Amino acid sequence: MATSRTLEPTPAPATACCAPLTGAPLSAEAAAALARTLKAVADPARLRLLSLIATHEGASACVCDLTGPLGLSQPTVSHHLKVLTEAGLLTREKRGTWAYFTLVPRALDALAAVLSSRTPGNAPA
Amino acid sequence: MATSRTLEPTPAPATACCAPLTGAPLSAEAAAALARTLKAVADPARLRLLSLIATHEGASACVCDLTGPLGLSQPTVSHHLKVLTEAGLLTREKRGTWAYFTLVPRALDALAAVLSSRTPGNAPA
Repeated sequence: MATSRTLEPTPAPATACCAPLTGAPLSAEAAAALARTLKAVADPARLRLLSLIATHEGASACVCDLTGPLGLSQPTVSHHLKVLTEAGLLTREKRGTWAYFTLVPRALDALAAVLSSRTPGNAPA
Repeated sequence: MATSRTLEPTPAPATACCAPLTGAPLSAEAAAALARTLKAVADPARLRLLSLIATHEGASACVCDLTGPLGLSQPTVSHHLKVLTEAGLLTREKRGTWAYFTLVPRALDALAAVLSSRTPGNAPA
């Protein structure tokens, strides 16, 4: 049970998916869950990490690929990657000595869907 | 100069609009601007306020309509409304003795567009 090869803390659902907040009043519980995910992304370094990983080959990157472009230390980058992984926006996989992080596009899309005022049935205003 | 009828601090653009962060690596400046807007919404009370205002008649509501549903004091609600207004997500207008707040749907949509992994030309994956 403790032998899993990856270290993802909890495969948490990324958000109180996906009813747009402009469609009906958010419950306190849904608002708390959504705020947690938004807090995970509401950081300049974490936004750049998501963007770097998303645009890397296969939407997957090693910590060793990410420290240089950000100009941050590896422990700092690892901390930010952990926050994003715990929020369900990245998955983590160990390959040899390095951890590789892969974007979970549906998690970002779920956030986008909640924020958008354009419900699937609506034409853009 | 100080006689403006509304108290909006700066009609700030809501985000470093609107290239998706999954399309190209975010610059440090774009990441900082986007993080500021996301921080404004990454709060349970502010998410509920956005949702309440969006679903109110005319997507506009008086502070006096918002304190009850949230169970928060008027100063607290006013603080959260100020943060959202400064982030460009609401506009504020004084009508008689009350301030009314109106959703800026394009500001939420700009946030959604930046987060979405589905660029306008892409079919959903």
